[in-house]
Amino acid sequence: MKIGILTGGGDCPGLNAVIRAVVRKGTFHYNDEFVGFLEGWRGVLENNARPLDLESVAGILPRGGTILRTSRTNPSKTENGIDRCVENLRKNGIDALVVIGGDDTQSISQKLFERGIKVVGVPKTIDNDLSGTDFCFGFDTAVTIATEAIDRVHTTAEAHNRVIVVEVMGRDSGWIATYSGVAGGADVILIPERPFNVDEISEIVKRRHNRGRYFSVIVVAEGARLADGDGSQATTAQTKDQFGHVRLGGIGNALAAEIEKRTGFETRAVVLGHIQRGGSPTAFDRMLATRYGVGAIDLVHQEKFGQMVVLRGNHIESIPIIESIAKTSYVSPELIDVALSLQDRRGNKKTAA
Amino acid sequence: MKIGILTGGGDCPGLNAVIRAVVRKGTFHYNDEFVGFLEGWRGVLENNARPLDLESVAGILPRGGTILRTSRTNPSKTENGIDRCVENLRKNGIDALVVIGGDDTQSISQKLFERGIKVVGVPKTIDNDLSGTDFCFGFDTAVTIATEAIDRVHTTAEAHNRVIVVEVMGRDSGWIATYSGVAGGADVILIPERPFNVDEISEIVKRRHNRGRYFSVIVVAEGARLADGDGSQATTAQTKDQFGHVRLGGIGNALAAEIEKRTGFETRAVVLGHIQRGGSPTAFDRMLATRYGVGAIDLVHQEKFGQMVVLRGNHIESIPIIESIAKTSYVSPELIDVALSLQDRRGNKKTAA
Amino acid sequence: MKIGILTGGGDCPGLNAVIRAVVRKGTFHYNDEFVGFLEGWRGVLENNARPLDLESVAGILPRGGTILRTSRTNPSKTENGIDRCVENLRKNGIDALVVIGGDDTQSISQKLFERGIKVVGVPKTIDNDLSGTDFCFGFDTAVTIATEAIDRVHTTAEAHNRVIVVEVMGRDSGWIATYSGVAGGADVILIPERPFNVDEISEIVKRRHNRGRYFSVIVVAEGARLADGDGSQATTAQTKDQFGHVRLGGIGNALAAEIEKRTGFETRAVVLGHIQRGGSPTAFDRMLATRYGVGAIDLVHQEKFGQMVVLRGNHIESIPIIESIAKTSYVSPELIDVALSLQDRRGNKKTAA
Amino acid sequence: MKIGILTGGGDCPGLNAVIRAVVRKGTFHYNDEFVGFLEGWRGVLENNARPLDLESVAGILPRGGTILRTSRTNPSKTENGIDRCVENLRKNGIDALVVIGGDDTQSISQKLFERGIKVVGVPKTIDNDLSGTDFCFGFDTAVTIATEAIDRVHTTAEAHNRVIVVEVMGRDSGWIATYSGVAGGADVILIPERPFNVDEISEIVKRRHNRGRYFSVIVVAEGARLADGDGSQATTAQTKDQFGHVRLGGIGNALAAEIEKRTGFETRAVVLGHIQRGGSPTAFDRMLATRYGVGAIDLVHQEKFGQMVVLRGNHIESIPIIESIAKTSYVSPELIDVALSLQDRRGNKKTAA
Repeated sequence: MKIGILTGGGDCPGLNAVIRAVVRKGTFHYNDEFVGFLEGWRGVLENNARPLDLESVAGILPRGGTILRTSRTNPSKTENGIDRCVENLRKNGIDALVVIGGDDTQSISQKLFERGIKVVGVPKTIDNDLSGTDFCFGFDTAVTIATEAIDRVHTTAEAHNRVIVVEVMGRDSGWIATYSGVAGGADVILIPERPFNVDEISEIVKRRHNRGRYFSVIVVAEGARLADGDGSQATTAQTKDQFGHVRLGGIGNALAAEIEKRTGFETRAVVLGHIQRGGSPTAFDRMLATRYGVGAIDLVHQEKFGQMVVLRGNHIESIPIIESIAKTSYVSPELIDVALSLQDRRGNKKTAA
Repeated sequence: MKIGILTGGGDCPGLNAVIRAVVRKGTFHYNDEFVGFLEGWRGVLENNARPLDLESVAGILPRGGTILRTSRTNPSKTENGIDRCVENLRKNGIDALVVIGGDDTQSISQKLFERGIKVVGVPKTIDNDLSGTDFCFGFDTAVTIATEAIDRVHTTAEAHNRVIVVEVMGRDSGWIATYSGVAGGADVILIPERPFNVDEISEIVKRRHNRGRYFSVIVVAEGARLADGDGSQATTAQTKDQFGHVRLGGIGNALAAEIEKRTGFETRAVVLGHIQRGGSPTAFDRMLATRYGVGAIDLVHQEKFGQMVVLRGNHIESIPIIESIAKTSYVSPELIDVALSLQDRRGNKKTAA
Repeated sequence: MKIGILTGGGDCPGLNAVIRAVVRKGTFHYNDEFVGFLEGWRGVLENNARPLDLESVAGILPRGGTILRTSRTNPSKTENGIDRCVENLRKNGIDALVVIGGDDTQSISQKLFERGIKVVGVPKTIDNDLSGTDFCFGFDTAVTIATEAIDRVHTTAEAHNRVIVVEVMGRDSGWIATYSGVAGGADVILIPERPFNVDEISEIVKRRHNRGRYFSVIVVAEGARLADGDGSQATTAQTKDQFGHVRLGGIGNALAAEIEKRTGFETRAVVLGHIQRGGSPTAFDRMLATRYGVGAIDLVHQEKFGQMVVLRGNHIESIPIIESIAKTSYVSPELIDVALSLQDRRGNKKTAA
Repeated sequence: MKIGILTGGGDCPGLNAVIRAVVRKGTFHYNDEFVGFLEGWRGVLENNARPLDLESVAGILPRGGTILRTSRTNPSKTENGIDRCVENLRKNGIDALVVIGGDDTQSISQKLFERGIKVVGVPKTIDNDLSGTDFCFGFDTAVTIATEAIDRVHTTAEAHNRVIVVEVMGRDSGWIATYSGVAGGADVILIPERPFNVDEISEIVKRRHNRGRYFSVIVVAEGARLADGDGSQATTAQTKDQFGHVRLGGIGNALAAEIEKRTGFETRAVVLGHIQRGGSPTAFDRMLATRYGVGAIDLVHQEKFGQMVVLRGNHIESIPIIESIAKTSYVSPELIDVALSLQDRRGNKKTAA
């Protein structure tokens, strides 16, 4: 078969590992031929493609980024965009298309599938909040980078008797914050799933101080938000999100300022940003990405189109792409409880994880 | 409650994270008191213990090793060993005991449980082959170290047109070899689950050479063994294992010599050994170890004695300790298939993963 | 002898390695006794000290931070501060004092030396800009962390066809920016030593784009500043520094906005901040810090007081503390030339490194 | 100018960084053209070359190995080898040749220079023992890898009350052992510069044990050798080297066996081998390699042929190639003293570092 591949949405460690696995298993076991569309859906829309063979994918397993590059181009927002995609796929003689991407990217997969294109999906979100799968590749790498950063600021916080706030990715969910916060031994972890109260956080910090721990490390997801009645609303830059909750602008820095004001302890913020999503994937992510790639090419040859590979427990399975779109997977109560378990909340109300 | 803790068997990254989680949750949520027995069962046998509190476990999360030290001492092999353990536990006023260890260590837990001691278990094996749980902490760290080593020898193999054999841990199972081999892009992966044939391996190496890839990286588990009819049996140091299979002595070096002899390509071996089991645990292992610790102290307060925490899918559950002892968990056919999928075996019989 | 030790100023990987080397060589070879003053000069001022022995320094070599903690407390700004320090040192029977710190910290060492206290200094600045020594410990660790971050954003910049600006430490000098920029393969490196022009930077980025490199990585020291005639002065938050040069406020983010405006290319900023100064020191820094510690205790027993250990070439030597204070060491023209050498400046004026 | 480049001898992290720097500065500043000869001198001998341009060197800075591959082929051992090299260089219109390699490789550079070829050299030895330069790229990476391994075995040694021997590279000199041993906090460091005595080593280990440190880590260079009167000579595999000194075969494992026999403490060995010389170079090595590359292309245009770039202090200079050949640079007494300073040798004779 002649199979197209593309990667869409944000960069994520493991994209190259998926591409490599699809091409290698396809070549060795199924005798397929491959074409890569460049820069996500833009490559299909503008017919920008190049052949992919064993040589193209040699040595890319440990490399971050994607040899096919990526974009957030959405053909459904271009006039006749979906039609042009269908046409360009036909023009290239594409028998099936492997689409690696998140929510937005897969919504186009679904539209094309409904137009008769033989699509299979590979889930991708560094935030790990795509519904239907237990883990997405790239997440473990992001957690590893964040944990290393938390380890580093720990020594500085302790040396200087400081509070340090580390802002990590997670616009809608707290997966990265919860995993890196627990792994890094953060004293407080703040996630979108549980709106928080600055006064309460300040109390935890003061209580540590009172038992002779003169430093604290707080991990906050970029999408964490204030509980509705929090008094600090008046004092920091803020907007209301789609749920009407208040969001601090630049949560890390804003929170550091608030805590310093309330506790009197020197407080600093670190915003990890883009370093969380680039670079060489961890072994865990390379294995997961490779399994997704193998699973995807198998789906093609099993003719399970409109399906997406997912991880359930330690097994690769598949679900209809449409079931995964536009649903967010949140951090489980069990994990939130683990995070809370390790904090000294004797006497606290429980509104922060 | 007054709770004892011990760590037994081989060193494994994450032991300290378990201890810390047990003590923190126990202190903050259950008001427990803790005693650590030193050097595994030896500490119980010889009544060598010390109190453990929040201060004792501060800062240990990222550290390898175990603050309680460890040993392979087996009280059932000492005269009245089990009796003396029971007596020493009673003497210390221990209400319950959290035992962190593998097969051998947990077999004593079971014996003590049968004698009325309130024991809960936490599984530990760096090889990841303990039955009943999907993952053991320390495994991801070992895989990460092995993968990094494979990445490194890859550049040397390629620069020199060489074959390099990397011997990793795995006496009875091929988990570390399979994960690190796939993650490191090894060209051949040899595991105990699938006895191999040196001629066949040599063919794969030669085939790569013929298509212009003048180097190969082979990952071999220390317990990998020759298929019964393999002609190399006469030529290398070997013993028969308990299954009557031939085992090469020092498989990595022996295999390298055999491959060089058959292919004529310069071949080198690297034996990773002890560096795979020490040092700071990965974020993944710290999270898993912490969840086990939280789960174990919860089991104590749920009075589920004789049970061991396990990971199933992404959930912490528990099973009777006795169910896990003396059963090995092998690499699944699905994962072996992933490893095979990525290799160029067009024309090969499939006897190696 | 009874010897005091303190660490002052900002956290820096390697402080513990210095302390350990002083205590070990002092104990094994000179039979000294040690006292650690806590939190820099504050510990001397407030007489907050604790004994230090082999046990206290066991296992601290690979750890970031400082077991003695640190502060920026300056006794010369407290009433009778210097007098109180002298008195407290006498009260503790301190025969000599080893002071590990930068400019500010050593200015107090000099004042105490002039008052008859037997002081030796160990230089410390993560920015590597202390005059008199070739390298300071901590610098290599900071460069390593920054380089790893640059590696990571490289893959994202390339995958997304983006410009990414990485802001690193370096208020007065560009050592970290130059080393990490060259090591990370940055396309432009901006340092305090060479005021820059935004238009010119934008031209370099556009020229890369024109030859098919659709991404760029720019490394900027936090203290980099605009050349005097730069037209962007009107458009960004700015202040004038002590030299009357314009400084952008939050140079990384400001510069990203300017470049995006002028080139039309999507541009992002990453501000590394505190993660550059914490965590385990690199092997290079551990060796250097250990050599400084050995050198410092040797200076004490050679009675070379008022002196500071320095690295010259690959030798440990000493200079009067007073010679090093208040002079900044700048990046050499040779290194700036290396940075410029690797950039495509065909047709450019040379105002940025 | 049309300039040839080659890399010879063993793999070493930073080779690609040198190649990249030569090509980039040559292209941007001197308008040069480049040809890469493949697999060291073999490529010149067999006229196996390919053009090198900006595209060829894009993205190679962080990668281990060498895009030109390498070999130990020595044209002076082939009939008319030198003549054929001269002829092939002329045939390709090569105006000057940049040779990156160690002793053996540069001895050919010298022979060709004497035949009128315009050669400049770049020193390369992972062991850091090439005479004339303070540091060689690759060395810091090897030290970093070895230090990380020592950190890891430390936790295992401590958890198990074990002695662990770590064998590192260094056939003729102890640079890697000394740096990684000091940086990793090894209790004993054994190097070729100072023949050792097993009884004495065993005493140090026992003395630690007596003061409650029940574990030890020993770092040994592969070329370390026994002092002449050592009694263990009869008991282990051994050969005499060119100096008539006894060498244990496989020093790491042999030494572990001897120590266990004499102390009764459980002792294990780890042999790091090839993982020390592959993989991504450290920031330090990338900077040094880049400076060498820039220096080499500058030498060409300064017409300083027959010269080799070297690092002196923190400056790039040059020396005649012939001055560097066949002289080994040994670890300085100052550094050996640092290593000895940190060990508990109260009462010991000083025969090991």
